[in-house]
Amino acid sequence: MKTLITGGTVVNATGRSRADVLVDGETVAALVDPGSTALAADLAAGVDRVIDATGKYVVPGGIDAHTHMEMPFGGTYASDTFETGTVAAAWGGTTTIIDFVVQYPDQNVLDQYHRWHEKAAGRCAVDYGFHQILSDVQDDSLVAMDELVAEGVTSFKLFTAYKGVFLSDDGQIFRAFQKGAENGALMMVHAENGSVIDVLQQQAVAAGHTTPFYHGTTRPWQAEEEATHRAIMLADLAGVPLYVVHVSAKQAVEQIAAARDRGKNVFGEACPQYLYLSLEEQLAARSEEWGDLEGAKWVCSTPLRARAEGHQDAMWQALRTNDLQLVSTDHCPFCMRGQKELGRDDFTKIPNGIGSVEHRMDLIYQGVVDGRISLERWVETCSVTPARMFGMYGRKGVVQPGADADIVVYDPAGRTSIGLEATHHMNMDYSAWEGFEVDGHVDTVLLRGEVVVADGAFHGRPGNGRFVRRDLSQYLI
Amino acid sequence: MKTLITGGTVVNATGRSRADVLVDGETVAALVDPGSTALAADLAAGVDRVIDATGKYVVPGGIDAHTHMEMPFGGTYASDTFETGTVAAAWGGTTTIIDFVVQYPDQNVLDQYHRWHEKAAGRCAVDYGFHQILSDVQDDSLVAMDELVAEGVTSFKLFTAYKGVFLSDDGQIFRAFQKGAENGALMMVHAENGSVIDVLQQQAVAAGHTTPFYHGTTRPWQAEEEATHRAIMLADLAGVPLYVVHVSAKQAVEQIAAARDRGKNVFGEACPQYLYLSLEEQLAARSEEWGDLEGAKWVCSTPLRARAEGHQDAMWQALRTNDLQLVSTDHCPFCMRGQKELGRDDFTKIPNGIGSVEHRMDLIYQGVVDGRISLERWVETCSVTPARMFGMYGRKGVVQPGADADIVVYDPAGRTSIGLEATHHMNMDYSAWEGFEVDGHVDTVLLRGEVVVADGAFHGRPGNGRFVRRDLSQYLI
Amino acid sequence: MKTLITGGTVVNATGRSRADVLVDGETVAALVDPGSTALAADLAAGVDRVIDATGKYVVPGGIDAHTHMEMPFGGTYASDTFETGTVAAAWGGTTTIIDFVVQYPDQNVLDQYHRWHEKAAGRCAVDYGFHQILSDVQDDSLVAMDELVAEGVTSFKLFTAYKGVFLSDDGQIFRAFQKGAENGALMMVHAENGSVIDVLQQQAVAAGHTTPFYHGTTRPWQAEEEATHRAIMLADLAGVPLYVVHVSAKQAVEQIAAARDRGKNVFGEACPQYLYLSLEEQLAARSEEWGDLEGAKWVCSTPLRARAEGHQDAMWQALRTNDLQLVSTDHCPFCMRGQKELGRDDFTKIPNGIGSVEHRMDLIYQGVVDGRISLERWVETCSVTPARMFGMYGRKGVVQPGADADIVVYDPAGRTSIGLEATHHMNMDYSAWEGFEVDGHVDTVLLRGEVVVADGAFHGRPGNGRFVRRDLSQYLI
Amino acid sequence: MKTLITGGTVVNATGRSRADVLVDGETVAALVDPGSTALAADLAAGVDRVIDATGKYVVPGGIDAHTHMEMPFGGTYASDTFETGTVAAAWGGTTTIIDFVVQYPDQNVLDQYHRWHEKAAGRCAVDYGFHQILSDVQDDSLVAMDELVAEGVTSFKLFTAYKGVFLSDDGQIFRAFQKGAENGALMMVHAENGSVIDVLQQQAVAAGHTTPFYHGTTRPWQAEEEATHRAIMLADLAGVPLYVVHVSAKQAVEQIAAARDRGKNVFGEACPQYLYLSLEEQLAARSEEWGDLEGAKWVCSTPLRARAEGHQDAMWQALRTNDLQLVSTDHCPFCMRGQKELGRDDFTKIPNGIGSVEHRMDLIYQGVVDGRISLERWVETCSVTPARMFGMYGRKGVVQPGADADIVVYDPAGRTSIGLEATHHMNMDYSAWEGFEVDGHVDTVLLRGEVVVADGAFHGRPGNGRFVRRDLSQYLI
Repeated sequence: MKTLITGGTVVNATGRSRADVLVDGETVAALVDPGSTALAADLAAGVDRVIDATGKYVVPGGIDAHTHMEMPFGGTYASDTFETGTVAAAWGGTTTIIDFVVQYPDQNVLDQYHRWHEKAAGRCAVDYGFHQILSDVQDDSLVAMDELVAEGVTSFKLFTAYKGVFLSDDGQIFRAFQKGAENGALMMVHAENGSVIDVLQQQAVAAGHTTPFYHGTTRPWQAEEEATHRAIMLADLAGVPLYVVHVSAKQAVEQIAAARDRGKNVFGEACPQYLYLSLEEQLAARSEEWGDLEGAKWVCSTPLRARAEGHQDAMWQALRTNDLQLVSTDHCPFCMRGQKELGRDDFTKIPNGIGSVEHRMDLIYQGVVDGRISLERWVETCSVTPARMFGMYGRKGVVQPGADADIVVYDPAGRTSIGLEATHHMNMDYSAWEGFEVDGHVDTVLLRGEVVVADGAFHGRPGNGRFVRRDLSQYLI
Repeated sequence: MKTLITGGTVVNATGRSRADVLVDGETVAALVDPGSTALAADLAAGVDRVIDATGKYVVPGGIDAHTHMEMPFGGTYASDTFETGTVAAAWGGTTTIIDFVVQYPDQNVLDQYHRWHEKAAGRCAVDYGFHQILSDVQDDSLVAMDELVAEGVTSFKLFTAYKGVFLSDDGQIFRAFQKGAENGALMMVHAENGSVIDVLQQQAVAAGHTTPFYHGTTRPWQAEEEATHRAIMLADLAGVPLYVVHVSAKQAVEQIAAARDRGKNVFGEACPQYLYLSLEEQLAARSEEWGDLEGAKWVCSTPLRARAEGHQDAMWQALRTNDLQLVSTDHCPFCMRGQKELGRDDFTKIPNGIGSVEHRMDLIYQGVVDGRISLERWVETCSVTPARMFGMYGRKGVVQPGADADIVVYDPAGRTSIGLEATHHMNMDYSAWEGFEVDGHVDTVLLRGEVVVADGAFHGRPGNGRFVRRDLSQYLI
Repeated sequence: MKTLITGGTVVNATGRSRADVLVDGETVAALVDPGSTALAADLAAGVDRVIDATGKYVVPGGIDAHTHMEMPFGGTYASDTFETGTVAAAWGGTTTIIDFVVQYPDQNVLDQYHRWHEKAAGRCAVDYGFHQILSDVQDDSLVAMDELVAEGVTSFKLFTAYKGVFLSDDGQIFRAFQKGAENGALMMVHAENGSVIDVLQQQAVAAGHTTPFYHGTTRPWQAEEEATHRAIMLADLAGVPLYVVHVSAKQAVEQIAAARDRGKNVFGEACPQYLYLSLEEQLAARSEEWGDLEGAKWVCSTPLRARAEGHQDAMWQALRTNDLQLVSTDHCPFCMRGQKELGRDDFTKIPNGIGSVEHRMDLIYQGVVDGRISLERWVETCSVTPARMFGMYGRKGVVQPGADADIVVYDPAGRTSIGLEATHHMNMDYSAWEGFEVDGHVDTVLLRGEVVVADGAFHGRPGNGRFVRRDLSQYLI
Repeated sequence: MKTLITGGTVVNATGRSRADVLVDGETVAALVDPGSTALAADLAAGVDRVIDATGKYVVPGGIDAHTHMEMPFGGTYASDTFETGTVAAAWGGTTTIIDFVVQYPDQNVLDQYHRWHEKAAGRCAVDYGFHQILSDVQDDSLVAMDELVAEGVTSFKLFTAYKGVFLSDDGQIFRAFQKGAENGALMMVHAENGSVIDVLQQQAVAAGHTTPFYHGTTRPWQAEEEATHRAIMLADLAGVPLYVVHVSAKQAVEQIAAARDRGKNVFGEACPQYLYLSLEEQLAARSEEWGDLEGAKWVCSTPLRARAEGHQDAMWQALRTNDLQLVSTDHCPFCMRGQKELGRDDFTKIPNGIGSVEHRMDLIYQGVVDGRISLERWVETCSVTPARMFGMYGRKGVVQPGADADIVVYDPAGRTSIGLEATHHMNMDYSAWEGFEVDGHVDTVLLRGEVVVADGAFHGRPGNGRFVRRDLSQYLI
């Protein structure tokens, strides 16, 4: 099966070119100058399908490096299964996700890893890799790290928060970092000072401050800045590269930027919610249906930050200047009914998370339209760098000969209403993006040569997605 | 004429791929997966020449964005003509140079521009563009800026030093910056506080400190740091992107990094001499032939810096972390005989400059071998970013369909003795790089599809090089 | 003549104490514990006058280190003579001023110094010292510096602005700095990039932007930050201590703070106008009498800064944290009639300056009341540090045995309307502080043992003030 | 009893003066100008004793704000009792100490406080105050904080290290900080990341790295920098002033300086060992008697740092620039025999501590002689600021009427061999300062009017020292 994508503009991290893309089976066979006649005969002869990309961008399929499908949390599960979540991803031009294997303190790391494979196998509509979460790091966790790297799970996430759930103390984190320095893995950290947050939350609840707004006020930027700096220093001491997930405070960015100025391999992840949404909007949120609880729709951790303090602008700037390197969603959806409403009388009971896996490419493309970033930077942060950061570049993250033909034909003249519950494909009974109309539209999506989205319809199939064994990070400076 | 480069690894700024490159006439017709049979028929049929790149890197031709061929300075001329200099460039894998049109205070900007065209036309062995130097900026200089941008000369260099020769005062520089903000040009600055340097030089000479070493001590890092910061603030006020040439002091890098952390379009240029050579070595330089004057071989401005102060390491780190974005040579050769020796009794009379146009690709590749930077970063800093920075990307700086077939096949198993006067091709009676043996070797060089270097011989022709009309910078953040 | 000040709280830079102060002739003879009977006999016997300071602060007389009495500028003269200005100073609790000897480019430094002595001699109501302004530094200026240091003029002011009037180029400034490094003098700098300001002013006037507001917009913070940094680097290179006058931009403070963090002897001066007044208020200023020209009342250089950008808060913070070390007024009064109104059609013709010599102690004490600074910090910034900075401590700036009995009894329960033209004593036809009511009141003022202000009346005499030969700075870190 | 100190130069934080000091009973009755005759009669009549201070400095008695007399630690006790330690202090010109009440996790805070009073009462030869250590902060600890503030114990020390011994987790520390923000107390922190240090120590011992040198290498600067930053952020969030004890890493100083630049009340303590001694010297230490264990003499926490990394110079600079505010000793002596030797086979068993209470004034005065700091800064950091920081100024820390007559007559022409076991008065069988000969000498010491050291003899008496109820800090900016 040969497919020719003609007339489009291929965009990569450093520029763009007019090129036809010949897909042969699952991979890209060639990029061809449309003005050249050198290969005309072959092209004329052998193509089964032609996709007209005239006036459109041809970009490598999106990679969402931070999702939590079916994640167990606080007695419930993230509402997207690997099936529903990856179908939604495909709709939004994301052809690879990296999901987090969860290990809680009393669980065995490798058991959990295998469990995740079971959950995902045969159900994914796009390709998928895994990061491994390590909670309460023990000796056998360190042993497991080596085995997982050999399996193509080359990144590990530690938490400085969520005592009794995810938390490792600094010594445990440091030991994992040392192991990473040995085996080449990339260490990820959820950076908030959980110990202080626990105190603030107890005090808030004791004071009767129980609405969702207090979720944000009890996770102040100082808690994020502090833990970010701490993780940076532990990584410095261990000599390991560090990736800080879901950065939301401008002061945390400053810590990351300072480390990078010192030549350290320290990276930060942007998420759409911290670029667009704010604590003030959460405070003002109120609906007939949910009253004050409306704000629960935007309860996520790290929390939304105050726009008056300039965090959102700082995130965009950092994304522009490469102090934040890529965009993931931290997709962790919960429904209002039966899930978010668990926290009606106590915000600490609200499951933490927002669902955006379907909207990432569109939301960040809007940054191009708004002049926040360049077109190339969109492709870089949503596809190229995720691939490099997490050891998939060459296969993923680029439209080049030999690469997987994960390709999005993106229509800059299109328009997308991303915020309607009725139209999105994630398994959520609301949208965190209600009311968002954005420019640009995902026109056609190919997963390893197969058209999975076209003409406003889904043509893929859960189960087509394959597990991606990842190499070590290709992004180290 | 069709050429197929087979078996090599194509390297770009973000990664590498196994791909065959089909060149059709002057441009790249296609990149083809060597494992695919889809285009086999055409490829078999139509290729006139095959270059075997097995085990080698296929990279976009080098771009040296800072050269001074035949530059008039202090009563003499830089010793390379456009012919000798560009032949040397080709030998070293550089297929495009950007040379500086010199305008002195009493000269008309556009006259000089045309004069440079006359000097270069029909003589260059590689493609060439121009930056325009503006000295003592006047109203008609500002008018000329618009005309030059229309001509494809989209970058202008101002000086904070060399009173009576190149210097513009801050108000003049600022007016040029304002014009750049209007017409989109990139502003370049030679950043040293010339006024203070003049005082220090007079004092040194008066004190009998006349050897070449004092060239360095009378251009202290403070003078560079200060002028760098000043240029950054003037550019900030004018709202124009700024490019600082030949950065050599770590404190200047810190100023650039700080501006970039604030989101400013501020860029810095690395040069091989500031990465490798030091003031201490210049101080120690002494030969039978030249005695103390030996140090004159390394008199350039900005000067070599003290290794004990960590400048060289800081330059490498900045190159690695993108606080410096690209590598140029500031190629400005003078012979010892008849030129450098003019300063035998007074270092201020030594023509300032070092010749490296031939060695840039090799010297920076050595940084890859030494673990200073990645292979991709070599390509990025020596070719991709120069193209983007100076508005040539797409045509230059990338191996992709439709691009000019400026291609270097680089042999990582090769070895190059760059420092022998007998073997280099620049018109100099010495080498600033004597004794440098580096890993890697320029194997084959194509200029717009034509093989100009192969099998250890030069096959090009002065006159084949074309003038490149440049677009506005494509590198702005 | 012996005076005993009883019942008061003596305040110095580090704390306060209940102590009676015995003044004998011109100096302080003793500080005595009021609870001790050890010296009761002598005290009972020998005191001619008792000043009851119960409930009041006894503080060293204020030192205003930056005044311009009768300064010639732009064809007119600052409206306060040494007589009117120093009488006003005494009213406000300032017992020493340091005035600037002006030397213009075509004038001889020492001639001007002697001229200033002539102007001041026999006319001053408080003690006075001189700084020397050096314009367009020449060889003989450097020679004069040594002579002036011997005369007790141990500080010199250079300008990076006012071309043709005060400006020295960087090399000239640097040579003066080198001389200062030799003879121990403190170098002062008016730090604004005049070259850029000249361009902006010409452009503003050409665009018809002629009202006083444009005075501020054409002297942007970047111009101040830049020149501040430049002066710091030149001083670093010369190895001389630096004092930046009238700092008004928070970014300039950041440069000063950064230099101090590096251990440099760099100091910054706060002025009341930059603590309290703003560009926004100047923009809004409009009166029946003066219309748009009303804003001319606050035309000074450096200019008032935008409150929305946080400069005023930054100045208070820096004063608190010792990133700015002291408070002077830059007293340079001009009347609206006949002076400020010269700029009715062109803001560049408005004489630059504000008059505050009478109000400094009250305005900064208000900072104590407002919780901006501590009581001790008030005394430190208004008296102790000016004395130390400018080589008078021991004689001035402290209430201790042997010191000049320059003493202010300050009433924290008092209240002062400083902003009424009718009540102030400066020779101005308006007040820049109209409408300012502040807590605290200058109750009694002694100049070398003589009561010059008491009971709401002036008891001093022009001519009583003496020239103070100053030592080298006593404040270097 | 009246004492007159004549002919000396009284030095305080801002300058010096020639003044005679009249002491009446326990307090200073007056400072008198020796050149004035105003009080001659009384002085002649009433003085019982005259101390000739001609050619000498008269300074407020030293205050050592960090001592651990008889501290229980690791199964042994610091070898100085309140008696031996305070006698040694007096010998060295220190007339007040602040000792730390130790509370371990299973102990009641107030019980411990009372126990400390029992230990000290009737035994001290100089005045003494207490800080309270809080370990493993619980609800009743917070209640105790209020009671202790009422008792004049206005500073509390928390630990981020020593798990199971002193450690509180971040939430506990934060709660104590919140309480301090309420009641005005100053919060002190031992800032090292103990969790990481524990890992490094276990790994070192497991690897057979058991000599004292590894004490330093397993407490890297990153661990100190990290915890310092963390404490700063927690204090920022709680809104409480913070005092970081025994700062030894230059990077920790940078964190403190940065916080101060942001206007925060963050303070840092210098200790003589971090100014003078280095890890390299500890590594090289070897003796016939102790072999490798010789290095145990300098095992203290934070540890000695590598001189090659510039920490010592950074400490001096910070002391000079007020990024560190005062000098304490962290006096915590252990003998080699029976104590330090416990760690012969395992450095983690070596009791941590160095004894210097006797030498602080001399060692820091040496900094004046060496040109590191000014004479005034010596007095400020060793006496004035400790008094202000810890709420004793006015009574202590200054020679002024009404103040306690704690006075040191210091002889700049003297010389002191501080490093001989035979000559020092601390209860240690070695000296950490062996071989140190310093300029300057403690000539005479008065404690509240009583001569306790004179003519090379101790005239004081254990039991004369009184408990000092301290006010809240008087040093906040």
